[in-house]
Amino acid sequence: MDQIVTFGEVLMRLSPEGNKKLIQANLLEFYFGGTEVNVGVSISNFGGNVKHISCVSNDFVGDTAIAYLQKFGVSTSAITRSNRPLGVYFLEVGAVMRPSSISYNRSHSSFSEIQPEMVNWEKAMKKAKWLHWTGITPGLCKGGYETLKQGLILAKDKGITVSADPTYRSGLWKYGENAKDVLQDLLNYSNIFIGGINEINEILGTNYTYSNEDFITASKHLIKEYPSIVKVFDKIRTAINSSWHKIRARMWNGFEFRETVDFEITHVIDRIGTGDAFAAGLIYGLQEFDDYKSMEFASAACALKHTYEGDINYATVAEVMGILNGNISGRLTR
Amino acid sequence: MDQIVTFGEVLMRLSPEGNKKLIQANLLEFYFGGTEVNVGVSISNFGGNVKHISCVSNDFVGDTAIAYLQKFGVSTSAITRSNRPLGVYFLEVGAVMRPSSISYNRSHSSFSEIQPEMVNWEKAMKKAKWLHWTGITPGLCKGGYETLKQGLILAKDKGITVSADPTYRSGLWKYGENAKDVLQDLLNYSNIFIGGINEINEILGTNYTYSNEDFITASKHLIKEYPSIVKVFDKIRTAINSSWHKIRARMWNGFEFRETVDFEITHVIDRIGTGDAFAAGLIYGLQEFDDYKSMEFASAACALKHTYEGDINYATVAEVMGILNGNISGRLTR
Amino acid sequence: MDQIVTFGEVLMRLSPEGNKKLIQANLLEFYFGGTEVNVGVSISNFGGNVKHISCVSNDFVGDTAIAYLQKFGVSTSAITRSNRPLGVYFLEVGAVMRPSSISYNRSHSSFSEIQPEMVNWEKAMKKAKWLHWTGITPGLCKGGYETLKQGLILAKDKGITVSADPTYRSGLWKYGENAKDVLQDLLNYSNIFIGGINEINEILGTNYTYSNEDFITASKHLIKEYPSIVKVFDKIRTAINSSWHKIRARMWNGFEFRETVDFEITHVIDRIGTGDAFAAGLIYGLQEFDDYKSMEFASAACALKHTYEGDINYATVAEVMGILNGNISGRLTR
Amino acid sequence: MDQIVTFGEVLMRLSPEGNKKLIQANLLEFYFGGTEVNVGVSISNFGGNVKHISCVSNDFVGDTAIAYLQKFGVSTSAITRSNRPLGVYFLEVGAVMRPSSISYNRSHSSFSEIQPEMVNWEKAMKKAKWLHWTGITPGLCKGGYETLKQGLILAKDKGITVSADPTYRSGLWKYGENAKDVLQDLLNYSNIFIGGINEINEILGTNYTYSNEDFITASKHLIKEYPSIVKVFDKIRTAINSSWHKIRARMWNGFEFRETVDFEITHVIDRIGTGDAFAAGLIYGLQEFDDYKSMEFASAACALKHTYEGDINYATVAEVMGILNGNISGRLTR
Amino acid sequence: MDQIVTFGEVLMRLSPEGNKKLIQANLLEFYFGGTEVNVGVSISNFGGNVKHISCVSNDFVGDTAIAYLQKFGVSTSAITRSNRPLGVYFLEVGAVMRPSSISYNRSHSSFSEIQPEMVNWEKAMKKAKWLHWTGITPGLCKGGYETLKQGLILAKDKGITVSADPTYRSGLWKYGENAKDVLQDLLNYSNIFIGGINEINEILGTNYTYSNEDFITASKHLIKEYPSIVKVFDKIRTAINSSWHKIRARMWNGFEFRETVDFEITHVIDRIGTGDAFAAGLIYGLQEFDDYKSMEFASAACALKHTYEGDINYATVAEVMGILNGNISGRLTR
Amino acid sequence: MDQIVTFGEVLMRLSPEGNKKLIQANLLEFYFGGTEVNVGVSISNFGGNVKHISCVSNDFVGDTAIAYLQKFGVSTSAITRSNRPLGVYFLEVGAVMRPSSISYNRSHSSFSEIQPEMVNWEKAMKKAKWLHWTGITPGLCKGGYETLKQGLILAKDKGITVSADPTYRSGLWKYGENAKDVLQDLLNYSNIFIGGINEINEILGTNYTYSNEDFITASKHLIKEYPSIVKVFDKIRTAINSSWHKIRARMWNGFEFRETVDFEITHVIDRIGTGDAFAAGLIYGLQEFDDYKSMEFASAACALKHTYEGDINYATVAEVMGILNGNISGRLTR
Repeated sequence: MDQIVTFGEVLMRLSPEGNKKLIQANLLEFYFGGTEVNVGVSISNFGGNVKHISCVSNDFVGDTAIAYLQKFGVSTSAITRSNRPLGVYFLEVGAVMRPSSISYNRSHSSFSEIQPEMVNWEKAMKKAKWLHWTGITPGLCKGGYETLKQGLILAKDKGITVSADPTYRSGLWKYGENAKDVLQDLLNYSNIFIGGINEINEILGTNYTYSNEDFITASKHLIKEYPSIVKVFDKIRTAINSSWHKIRARMWNGFEFRETVDFEITHVIDRIGTGDAFAAGLIYGLQEFDDYKSMEFASAACALKHTYEGDINYATVAEVMGILNGNISGRLTR
Repeated sequence: MDQIVTFGEVLMRLSPEGNKKLIQANLLEFYFGGTEVNVGVSISNFGGNVKHISCVSNDFVGDTAIAYLQKFGVSTSAITRSNRPLGVYFLEVGAVMRPSSISYNRSHSSFSEIQPEMVNWEKAMKKAKWLHWTGITPGLCKGGYETLKQGLILAKDKGITVSADPTYRSGLWKYGENAKDVLQDLLNYSNIFIGGINEINEILGTNYTYSNEDFITASKHLIKEYPSIVKVFDKIRTAINSSWHKIRARMWNGFEFRETVDFEITHVIDRIGTGDAFAAGLIYGLQEFDDYKSMEFASAACALKHTYEGDINYATVAEVMGILNGNISGRLTR
Repeated sequence: MDQIVTFGEVLMRLSPEGNKKLIQANLLEFYFGGTEVNVGVSISNFGGNVKHISCVSNDFVGDTAIAYLQKFGVSTSAITRSNRPLGVYFLEVGAVMRPSSISYNRSHSSFSEIQPEMVNWEKAMKKAKWLHWTGITPGLCKGGYETLKQGLILAKDKGITVSADPTYRSGLWKYGENAKDVLQDLLNYSNIFIGGINEINEILGTNYTYSNEDFITASKHLIKEYPSIVKVFDKIRTAINSSWHKIRARMWNGFEFRETVDFEITHVIDRIGTGDAFAAGLIYGLQEFDDYKSMEFASAACALKHTYEGDINYATVAEVMGILNGNISGRLTR
Repeated sequence: MDQIVTFGEVLMRLSPEGNKKLIQANLLEFYFGGTEVNVGVSISNFGGNVKHISCVSNDFVGDTAIAYLQKFGVSTSAITRSNRPLGVYFLEVGAVMRPSSISYNRSHSSFSEIQPEMVNWEKAMKKAKWLHWTGITPGLCKGGYETLKQGLILAKDKGITVSADPTYRSGLWKYGENAKDVLQDLLNYSNIFIGGINEINEILGTNYTYSNEDFITASKHLIKEYPSIVKVFDKIRTAINSSWHKIRARMWNGFEFRETVDFEITHVIDRIGTGDAFAAGLIYGLQEFDDYKSMEFASAACALKHTYEGDINYATVAEVMGILNGNISGRLTR
Repeated sequence: MDQIVTFGEVLMRLSPEGNKKLIQANLLEFYFGGTEVNVGVSISNFGGNVKHISCVSNDFVGDTAIAYLQKFGVSTSAITRSNRPLGVYFLEVGAVMRPSSISYNRSHSSFSEIQPEMVNWEKAMKKAKWLHWTGITPGLCKGGYETLKQGLILAKDKGITVSADPTYRSGLWKYGENAKDVLQDLLNYSNIFIGGINEINEILGTNYTYSNEDFITASKHLIKEYPSIVKVFDKIRTAINSSWHKIRARMWNGFEFRETVDFEITHVIDRIGTGDAFAAGLIYGLQEFDDYKSMEFASAACALKHTYEGDINYATVAEVMGILNGNISGRLTR
Repeated sequence: MDQIVTFGEVLMRLSPEGNKKLIQANLLEFYFGGTEVNVGVSISNFGGNVKHISCVSNDFVGDTAIAYLQKFGVSTSAITRSNRPLGVYFLEVGAVMRPSSISYNRSHSSFSEIQPEMVNWEKAMKKAKWLHWTGITPGLCKGGYETLKQGLILAKDKGITVSADPTYRSGLWKYGENAKDVLQDLLNYSNIFIGGINEINEILGTNYTYSNEDFITASKHLIKEYPSIVKVFDKIRTAINSSWHKIRARMWNGFEFRETVDFEITHVIDRIGTGDAFAAGLIYGLQEFDDYKSMEFASAACALKHTYEGDINYATVAEVMGILNGNISGRLTR
């Protein structure tokens, strides 16, 4: 009973090197990612025992995706294969006032064919102690929603902790279901809420502001509506421009409000997956530390992720703790 | 009335450098191609006036595809945009006894949404003297078949020459129509047949062998069934292995059988698009030379294409003629 | 009558990747550029209809230069060829207090052979509504000066608007003519002056300071001397170091002085061609907006250019407008 | 009891791209390999369940080596860490008459510290059915010899099949032991001998020639001296030059001599690890096929390896079987 | 008598491109360096006549290392060869709060075999006017200590100026000698001390703080103990994070304390070797300028080094003087 | 008196990677070369003491060219600088029947400004025992011819051996002199003739065929006309195509005709500079071996050069001798 399980699409990311636009390039770097993959790999890099559940293409692209997860020690035994291609996204990395830009090719991907009967949740979660989901998966396709729900029902039955990152992205939700209805449904099976005012307002239909006062009120409101939820964690990004961000976090754990100081990221290397690094830090942290320390760990992990290329966070626990212990001047380690 | 028109999907090709497999790489080279695109760009490189008709994605990938065609002087004014992603294929380049391997991501691409009403054939072919089609497009989707047929009908009306390369590929034809029926239908609007025994047997339901005798008989049979067809050109590849090929061609032009000698390609650089280079050479040649010279030109063009990376043939007329004039020892030009 | 015409040398830029010096490298990235090329391509990227007039080498380098312009939709029909090589420049990109460094190989290039009889201005400007010139071209060679003057005379005759960016660069002007005399001559045919105090002082032989008061006085003085000029636009760069700049602009349009706020470019990616991006933004803007909005558009375009590698500005109108609408925090677009 | 166990050094390979010499380069491609690693990864790529035992550096280089094995599904649970650096080798890839050249940095590597007490063979081989060793490991250091011997003793006790590839390399064996003595000692625990006349002569102190007759006699002699050995397999390479090889194999399995035909490798991509690919093919084959088919499978695997860059064989069983079924013309797979 | 002599290990540096971690890469950039090499090459780039004494591997790696020094005009005539491999280090370049990380493979390198009898100091220093040493060399191995000492004794005899950069690095000093004892011994032969409070405290066993007052007292104390030392120069780095540093310097030259202002390095490209650039600037400066100007030159050289990739400083005297003359805004040079 | 002196232009070579055309690329590999540079560097790689005389650009390109020669141990002390740019050539590497293609940018290069007074031949050849020239230099510009002639006169005076490779290239000789006249003039100062029937026919105005009989007659004829010439060496290339060549050599040394067997180069990596490798091998050989052995050495060196990328031959004497000793199967060296 010590495995952390993630479920979601494995995406291939294709991006020109550096800050080039596609039209300038003839080479693309590729990585694999996807929000739940990023969370799983990051936890594995922290030393966690992680299994990722997905459906990938039955070709050399899917083979490579599976090898990528294995490389980071993530179990791929519950991944199924489909004759449809792996989802892909193209990324142009911006700078200063130029935003990064993403173009997706995922709506008919191998994962879009996922159906409840393709995942043996009982077997896949035999040793699980934690299940993490995000709002991307139920937003992709009906099968994603229904398959996830099977997992959540089983998790509830077996007393497995469930973390929810309901990220609302308007470009999804094209298959017929309403985001609000689905997220409300799934929150009933969840214990840890990773999200901010935008997500709470979307789910509750409210208009809370970004102030700490409203955050506390909104969190209480959310917990009241969804009593399985016991803690709310929110990561706050202040973007001076594409290349210079600040990150801090705040929480309401049912009895206490706490807030961290800002980490200053003066030279952003890659912001993709930084929210996932926060979620991963939190999931790992909550198994090792108290709530506040977990949040601090998560925000340091999130800040560190901005310094790695690609979607995933390579930081180890020792590296995150180093940041928390104040070693932020980047002194060379030999 | 001097434009050559091609119609078909623009595909992005993604391949690891050299002979690497995807699992070994973290960089991919990309090119744009697609069988009819390859024909069009090659003819433009010969100095022809080419327009390509297609439907590409409405994002920076589609922008880049259009810019790619413009770079080679191909008119893109008749290309429409769709909210679906551009078709993609992954290629691992083999060597010696290891075959190259392709994985497609095209079945729900921007082109797969093509419908007859999206192409204004009247306007697009205002200045056309030639229209080229292949069996890939009607094999992809019903809209591809129907849109192409509109163009062929108009071509027949206006007396525009039509070349057909009915390449039969069993991995296509998933949308409900039968390859044989569709190809038979479209051949009625075609004048130049570019294909061999396999294609003729598929279309006529016959069992001709590869011998020259059978080729002549089969060609006569084909012309009898489809009287609009006046000439048959066949490219013959002898593959010693992935890295060493020979190319020759033969023809039946209604009254005469001719055959070229083999070009020996001892070090294949890239075989993708070599059939398209043959078709392009033929289409260009038939406007400048007699039938036999056109076939020689086409087979030299095809042979030369094996020496270029990517899908398209960069050879100029002077370069192809140089080969035909016997300069095949690769003497350095300064 | 809706084409924008640019005239000048097409240069190949060769630079080691990143911040490497040539002595550290064995690979060079190449782009094509040249100040008037950069202006033309940027306007084409804004959706303008652009024709570039030049003379390039009659070899595969010149072929590639022409293909490069075509890629961005710029008409190359008026480009002539010469047996001399294309002009080249080598660039080492600096950082922080290290300046970037350029070494030219252009003085005997294909463009240096340009002669008035090589350009059929009447034909080339048949549909033109705007002609843009810079001080580089008349500074390169006598043929550049004389050929340009033919175009300017015709523009004046036909009522085509002329913008002048008289950039004075002391490394040029080696062929016998005096910069001041030539620029004075050419300004008589110009309507929009894009330049600052340095250029005005050089032309008028004055000593105005950089203050806004002096800018207004100098502009009035310039307009008095050259009555065809009706508006003066000046881009002001504040360089903290090679990697951190600020950009703002000011104008005197004959009756009103206006000034924009600074754009802060905290992480300069590539500063080459940023002045050209300003000119392009202005030329495009003056056809769509009022003077102040045009200047704002131009300075946002200029600021954005600092985030693209290479000489040209890839920004679209929507992207520039996004910046003007305050979206400067680089929020990811999906 | 179904795991195949390999034991030996993990080496990092560093080589300039293509055929460059180090003095021409400033980039190096890196792979991980080592003869037993290559065997293990290849078997894993065939679908085998493989565990590799080694000692790697306790730094980010060692972390990356472990991740590399994991990527290919090889179990790394029995790998220990040392404070010494990972072994490295530099490779310059030759062509035609220029030989490839290797320079090692391994004699004080992390693996050179291996000692019997660092490997818990009982635990590591709990599920093993096969153990493979080569003459490299006992040639590196006394600890390598002694640790390997512990494993072999246990294998004999438990009835685990042992394959031996006693590759004699004169550049090793610097630590005091005599190659002949050690190899003789270890052969007593081995069942399948993978090697040729050179190795047999080295071990027996004989002078057999390369003829088939002598091969049979030598094999019988070897089996007589080391009765645990039951089968002898020999791979024969005919090198026309660095870029063109032929591969065939022969065997004496105690009662029958068989020989395969040559595979012609007209364009060698990378010959490193081709012997290991033969061993891997044989080990896999002997569990699935009869002796002759196993040898055929091994020689096809070996031939295919010449088409992959890097040290390891990426071929799947289906790909090797394709070659054996005569598909050697490299026909494109879609 | 005008040569500057450096003595120490030549190391190969291997690092993934940009900010990648090794686990993300399959290409490594390589440079050669080593603290004394960096000093020597930088002085040669300033126009100095430099000879470097070392022992490199007798393989193509060592050949390339020697060619690298020759490229920058450093004399390699006194370099010997060993059968052991060249020392190597792997570097992962950090960003913002992520530190850069180094892993060494040098303890059994070719240089580790250096012995006094391998260097003919009399011949090697025949034309020397200056000898520079650092604390790395005597910390590596006993032979390094003893060989260096022979050189220092000769330098003292011949009146050659000796600069000492006693950099104390705790990861070294594994071979039996005590850092403090050895450094104390070697300082008796040295004239210019390049180091700060940490080094002085380590050598004297004191606890001075970083204040200017303590620096002066500590310097006086050091000079009193080691009367051959006449001047102390200290470089002070303020690291905001891995990507943003400030550099200034201070000195006590026996009668005067001076301090420079900070250079702000807002975008660090590569911090490796910046201390060596300071030492090189100082050694060059002390032969051309007064003490304060030398220190200014050294700190500008150090600041500039942060803008070059790799270990060495490419700046020329003119480029450093440009910075000192206030040209720090990175204005493009043409 | 033991230095070998070469005189000629240093060219920068720019070529897309692999077999790409410029239009496909955005990266260029660069090398430095030039026919006499190639000869000099190759001799230096054989261990010869070489000085190269030239005139390079006074910018960072010229700095890098000088560093390149230094890297290979060639003395650059007699190289002068000019304000004109370094000569450049672009190369597209062909394959099979596609020829490689070169485009030059050298006619107004730094070397084109060479004048007799810029070279102090007396000083530069103080220690010379050999001077090598080719027909490229006098074909470039009058200054090249006149400066070379000064050197040849001095060589004759001092009894320095002169080798002549009169390579006739019709693309040169644009400055007014007639190739035949100039080459005849310069041959009067030469002793070793490296060239074939084409060159002899050009110089003598004869029509000898390629037969051995004619070669002997032609050589005798040449020696009769130019009695300073004592030996004639001819390299014969048989090109099957761009990728497959054969190389042999023949000689007439005044009393004996000899011929070598063919070296088969089945996979040409880079043919640029192979003639220079032959000349370098010959010049080195004639100082160590008899005439026939020298010619064998030269042809093996020439063959080996086809396996190296770039213009120069990296082979050592040991590597060439290995080929001569029959080790042409490319057996891996460890």
